[in-house]
Amino acid sequence: MNIERKERLNEIYQKISRHFFQGVIPYWLERGIDREFGGYLTTFDAQGKWVPGDQHKYIVTQTRMIWGTSLFYERLPQDSRSLQAASQGVDFFVDHFWDTKRGGWFWKVQRDGSLVDAGKVVYGQSFAIYALAKYTLSTGDKRGLDYADRTFDLLQRYCSDTARGGYYENLEPDWRLSEPGFAAGDRKSLDIHMHLLECFTTLYEASGMEIHRRRLQEIIEVILKYMIHPEFGCGLNQFDHEFRPVPPIAIRRTWNAEREGDLAGGSLDTTSYVHNLELVWLLVYACGIMELSVDPYRAVIQRLVDHTLQYGIDWTHGGIYRDGPHNAPAVIRDKEWWQHTESLVGLLDAYLLFGNESYLDAFEKVWWFSDQFFINHELGEWRTLLTETGEPIDAGLGNPWKACYHTGRAMDECMKRLKMILKE
Amino acid sequence: MNIERKERLNEIYQKISRHFFQGVIPYWLERGIDREFGGYLTTFDAQGKWVPGDQHKYIVTQTRMIWGTSLFYERLPQDSRSLQAASQGVDFFVDHFWDTKRGGWFWKVQRDGSLVDAGKVVYGQSFAIYALAKYTLSTGDKRGLDYADRTFDLLQRYCSDTARGGYYENLEPDWRLSEPGFAAGDRKSLDIHMHLLECFTTLYEASGMEIHRRRLQEIIEVILKYMIHPEFGCGLNQFDHEFRPVPPIAIRRTWNAEREGDLAGGSLDTTSYVHNLELVWLLVYACGIMELSVDPYRAVIQRLVDHTLQYGIDWTHGGIYRDGPHNAPAVIRDKEWWQHTESLVGLLDAYLLFGNESYLDAFEKVWWFSDQFFINHELGEWRTLLTETGEPIDAGLGNPWKACYHTGRAMDECMKRLKMILKE
Repeated sequence: MNIERKERLNEIYQKISRHFFQGVIPYWLERGIDREFGGYLTTFDAQGKWVPGDQHKYIVTQTRMIWGTSLFYERLPQDSRSLQAASQGVDFFVDHFWDTKRGGWFWKVQRDGSLVDAGKVVYGQSFAIYALAKYTLSTGDKRGLDYADRTFDLLQRYCSDTARGGYYENLEPDWRLSEPGFAAGDRKSLDIHMHLLECFTTLYEASGMEIHRRRLQEIIEVILKYMIHPEFGCGLNQFDHEFRPVPPIAIRRTWNAEREGDLAGGSLDTTSYVHNLELVWLLVYACGIMELSVDPYRAVIQRLVDHTLQYGIDWTHGGIYRDGPHNAPAVIRDKEWWQHTESLVGLLDAYLLFGNESYLDAFEKVWWFSDQFFINHELGEWRTLLTETGEPIDAGLGNPWKACYHTGRAMDECMKRLKMILKE
Repeated sequence: MNIERKERLNEIYQKISRHFFQGVIPYWLERGIDREFGGYLTTFDAQGKWVPGDQHKYIVTQTRMIWGTSLFYERLPQDSRSLQAASQGVDFFVDHFWDTKRGGWFWKVQRDGSLVDAGKVVYGQSFAIYALAKYTLSTGDKRGLDYADRTFDLLQRYCSDTARGGYYENLEPDWRLSEPGFAAGDRKSLDIHMHLLECFTTLYEASGMEIHRRRLQEIIEVILKYMIHPEFGCGLNQFDHEFRPVPPIAIRRTWNAEREGDLAGGSLDTTSYVHNLELVWLLVYACGIMELSVDPYRAVIQRLVDHTLQYGIDWTHGGIYRDGPHNAPAVIRDKEWWQHTESLVGLLDAYLLFGNESYLDAFEKVWWFSDQFFINHELGEWRTLLTETGEPIDAGLGNPWKACYHTGRAMDECMKRLKMILKE
């Protein structure tokens, strides 16, 4: 690595560190706590002003805020505000989201905690595990791991597919499979299996239990066996129960469907560049926690990254596109915040694994675009959605699906990796 | 059906009924209860005299006695001895076999209940579910179903294979997979998956819970997808985790290994005629409990039965052989008690499904041999092992693996089916 690159990376490190400690952390500790009802507030406009929105609290953002505030406490243990923020979030979550009758976590409650939707969605359950295990890792409060392991048990009891492997993803309040179609009881996806990989990693990290490790290894096996395009090496999207790829749809109880409603089937020929890069770093991370070599996965990782470099990175304007075909240029070319945060981490991991500087070029392209257009430096959080060239489409800093998990986590993970790279 | 056949079947019905009510039931109620320590005694010589044997109590026979005495109580509710026999068996089982620390059931204890082998074997866990659910169905004591469902949960948590489907079968006291080889942590089998089918059926019958039904449907799917020979239609035997057939071995903690030790791999080209017929009737039974049509399974059932008629039935001496190749005459030609009891039920189901009288011919061949040689009519139980022509090899009436489950259950199931056939 030449000296100019090193200097640039060092400067990026400094910027990221400032943004994390002086932006993201205070942004969320000041605005993200619901001091009236407990739990978290996540809907903020472009000026960082809370907007009531639909007044609902979603499992996804409540748990992501538990995860995020737990991380903040790990990094700033002297600041008791983050411990308090995490702990009151767990209180609210356990009091209002836990299904005391049938076990598991509800999908959505009112701001005051009264029940709106008792649906059992594996995406939500996975974030509950992830957040609660992290909360115990960070604070030592065993309540988190206890509920995380109970959730793990319920996943095994109700959601695993003991005929074909993997997990059913969309279930009703009583843990029956949802209907086929929009409710997607007939589907499996890379997205949710990847988030199971993510949460089993943290669960195993917190518990050290062999069964959590075994389930983590199995989910990796499922993803790599069925969910990667055999020819082009990119991730596939949605599948039937037998893991046959099916044209993706917007699924009830997802961010896309909440925004766009019940869309008809899209094209089979589509991949999410950043699910691919997120998979890369989550897989590397899982190997680290299990103290296993990444070597068996180097080939698949390299193909995932190279596919993104070829089609996902916007080498002209910077940043990264959202979706595109398996072997042709990107089609959905607007730019979304979480794709940028996750790809930063994945690209640094790819460089650390392969030493290929084109991965650092891509990292810099994504960082430059993020720094220029996504980050609201004055307020300390990222805008939601931009055009290909960086004009705001949605400059809001929070919404029912956007909190501090992508931004805070990516800044933290990038710092760790940049430190290693800069030490080289 | 001609009148001679009907008369013969009626006579068999009478004999079976006498044998069940005046033989099997009193035999076990008089001898099978351990009045000193609780639980059951199952080791009896050819004269029906208790022999201490290795002084061990095995999960398999303790649970089978709970199952059997629960059945006796269903059939003779006026006889409180069987209720008492079942209930004290559950007491002993819960007190001495339940792993209070890690959950699940031990493999083997001393006669007085002190622990010998804490191994977690899915074969044993499946019989615990089967017996405890039956006990609740029969007596109304909810303790049985409660423990059965907790065992089901532990199977889902620790034993299901969420990468490839089906279940791991051999686990250590702490629920880690056993080593490969003799301890068979690397194997799956038709035998154990069939007994999971059996126990999930009774669990669903007792609980009515959708998740128990779903797991039952999944195990049927696994068995039919992977465990039947695609060309010859007979059952396969042992598999690796990916369900690739592997040469069968005697596995630690099984009856074969207890008798014969660590045998090297047998031939891939082998099938158990009576696992095939047992699968037939357990599958038909499961469909009945789920109120599903058997139609989707008629073809596979017919091939299983026809294979047995071609190679398994000993048309010369009567009875049924134990094992043989997929497409050639039987090789292991001595005759064992449980193969005879289970095949009687399977052959009657085959006749009820297809109306083919050759299935009744086979039934009569097996019954004749059983009646002549296996049943000790004076004492009321079956001998263990005979030569091809009926000379005793082991005339003992009970052993650590032989109790009243095969004999009592088969007599009861045959009566139900013969009644239906005789009504035609």
